Amino acid sequence: MTASFTDLSSFRAILGQAPKADAAATQGAETRNAQLTKPPGALGRLETLAIWYAGWRGDPRPQITAPQVIIFAGNHGVAARGVSAFPPEVTVQMVANFKGGGAAINQLSKAFGAQMSVHALDLDHPTADFTQGPAMTEAELLSALQTGWNAVDPKADLLVTGEMGIGNTTPAAAIACALFGGTVEAWVGRGTGVDDAGLARKAAVVTAGLALHPSRDPLDVLRCLGGREIAAMVGAIAHARALRIPVILDGFICCAAAAVLAKLNPAGLDHCVAGHVSAEGAHPVLLAHLGKEPLLNLGLRLGEGSGAALAIGVLKGAVACHSGMATFAEAGVAAG
Amino acid sequence: MTASFTDLSSFRAILGQAPKADAAATQGAETRNAQLTKPPGALGRLETLAIWYAGWRGDPRPQITAPQVIIFAGNHGVAARGVSAFPPEVTVQMVANFKGGGAAINQLSKAFGAQMSVHALDLDHPTADFTQGPAMTEAELLSALQTGWNAVDPKADLLVTGEMGIGNTTPAAAIACALFGGTVEAWVGRGTGVDDAGLARKAAVVTAGLALHPSRDPLDVLRCLGGREIAAMVGAIAHARALRIPVILDGFICCAAAAVLAKLNPAGLDHCVAGHVSAEGAHPVLLAHLGKEPLLNLGLRLGEGSGAALAIGVLKGAVACHSGMATFAEAGVAAG
Repeated sequence: MTASFTDLSSFRAILGQAPKADAAATQGAETRNAQLTKPPGALGRLETLAIWYAGWRGDPRPQITAPQVIIFAGNHGVAARGVSAFPPEVTVQMVANFKGGGAAINQLSKAFGAQMSVHALDLDHPTADFTQGPAMTEAELLSALQTGWNAVDPKADLLVTGEMGIGNTTPAAAIACALFGGTVEAWVGRGTGVDDAGLARKAAVVTAGLALHPSRDPLDVLRCLGGREIAAMVGAIAHARALRIPVILDGFICCAAAAVLAKLNPAGLDHCVAGHVSAEGAHPVLLAHLGKEPLLNLGLRLGEGSGAALAIGVLKGAVACHSGMATFAEAGVAAG
Repeated sequence: MTASFTDLSSFRAILGQAPKADAAATQGAETRNAQLTKPPGALGRLETLAIWYAGWRGDPRPQITAPQVIIFAGNHGVAARGVSAFPPEVTVQMVANFKGGGAAINQLSKAFGAQMSVHALDLDHPTADFTQGPAMTEAELLSALQTGWNAVDPKADLLVTGEMGIGNTTPAAAIACALFGGTVEAWVGRGTGVDDAGLARKAAVVTAGLALHPSRDPLDVLRCLGGREIAAMVGAIAHARALRIPVILDGFICCAAAAVLAKLNPAGLDHCVAGHVSAEGAHPVLLAHLGKEPLLNLGLRLGEGSGAALAIGVLKGAVACHSGMATFAEAGVAAG
């Protein structure tokens, strides 16, 4: 659907109209699942995944034929504060790598049959250092939300949102701490591999940001402490909901974006599953706050949507079993 | 390679000649991995998986293009003792379902681009009830090992062995208990969904079998307490080793077969990874004895190679990243 966000209230209004899963398709998928040639429950989580997917697609016997992976890239004022193991220019270099097909997410998208697109958000103009002022103006936030919203292909039947942005575990930690509380130290982690001194700098930066920006309204938090690629993921995940496209969440930064939607609407992530739990220390905590059990746990900590893209395979397998298997009656198998 | 097992010593001799991974390819893959456009270690277990795969394939930059899934089916004398929630005729019915394309493993094989074949081993003649005598004669065991050996396609570059056999968690538990010790109760589980009385019958059957067959030589254990489909998996996994084809192990029954090879040669499963940990209670214990960390944990308990087939996707993703990604130098990205 097309939507134009002229102010934040128009974005909030869209979220208030978020559709639910199709109850009839969910029921039809449950009925079908019970008839398939396997002992009850023997496909474990694949069964609940397939039924969930069927409900969102409004089809008791769906197929996954058009997964979409979207990578959003942004630069961060706080990157100048030594919060990352990599220099800020790597963001633009990696965008070129995405466009050239050389990154991990390119290989994973290809392996699982997903179309992939890359959106670089104003990389020449990093967000403001949130220890000095709000990371974004309202106009900048609206623009990033709109970019994310517009990036979703209405014909996609599964969405992965990934990100690239040197320094962006710092705004993600700030968002998570603002939304869910707890100590700053519990939310900051090593990101791409920062040392102890860098970790201490991250904690100090997040502490300063939280003090400077006291509002805990989710969209204020996103604007003051977030970043353009994080806001774009918020816009994309929201649009997927409006289109009833199921979403596989990636790692810590993607989940920080998703958390904004969860805080705006407790059912706001019902169309999302957690693709994996990453090696970033606070990711399991964040997933627990979101009530999401990860599909994979393989120690990834790359971002780019990589863990979620890997989980496309799990979802494809689940839906293939559900929609392709014979029933006991069709196969002439005794149902036990 | 062709091999003809005229007696068990010829099978033992083959195992004694099991090749190792190619050290140069392993080293080459490690070198390449360190140059790829990602923070060191950021792909987590995908990195070690790709390097392991490269070593076995003897290629520092391999591809997975020809995965093979083989399903072996057997019937069990102990099935008459009420150890399963399903009647024994379901084995032959499910073989027809495999051949007709209607089972879960058919959908997963297709989803992950694997060729699939089905070998029904003398279903009209179940193995002997091992509480009364050895499950198999030496000739029957040799025939089953040979069937498994011959079923492996030498052109395959990844192997999944799966099984179907009503009642076969009972021989699998007996094998595991014979090889690794511990209480019978710790090794028997609910299989396809047996009730408390069935579980007690399983424990009694396994206890009786272990008492009747005191030899703990792994091939004696396999012959006296196993089954044809379990022995066929032993033969197939051994042949994969001789051909340097990496293997993804499936659930409890597949791992009981693999355990025979591990006991015959401590390095006998170096070419294998554990595809998943199933919901069968003793599977995590068995994996720990084998020193294997599962790739997936999704509550499956179906057999048929289903969990391992799902893990083909993980392995494909790992190898696609490893072999397809650009290096820092190629992409012009600062290495941090």
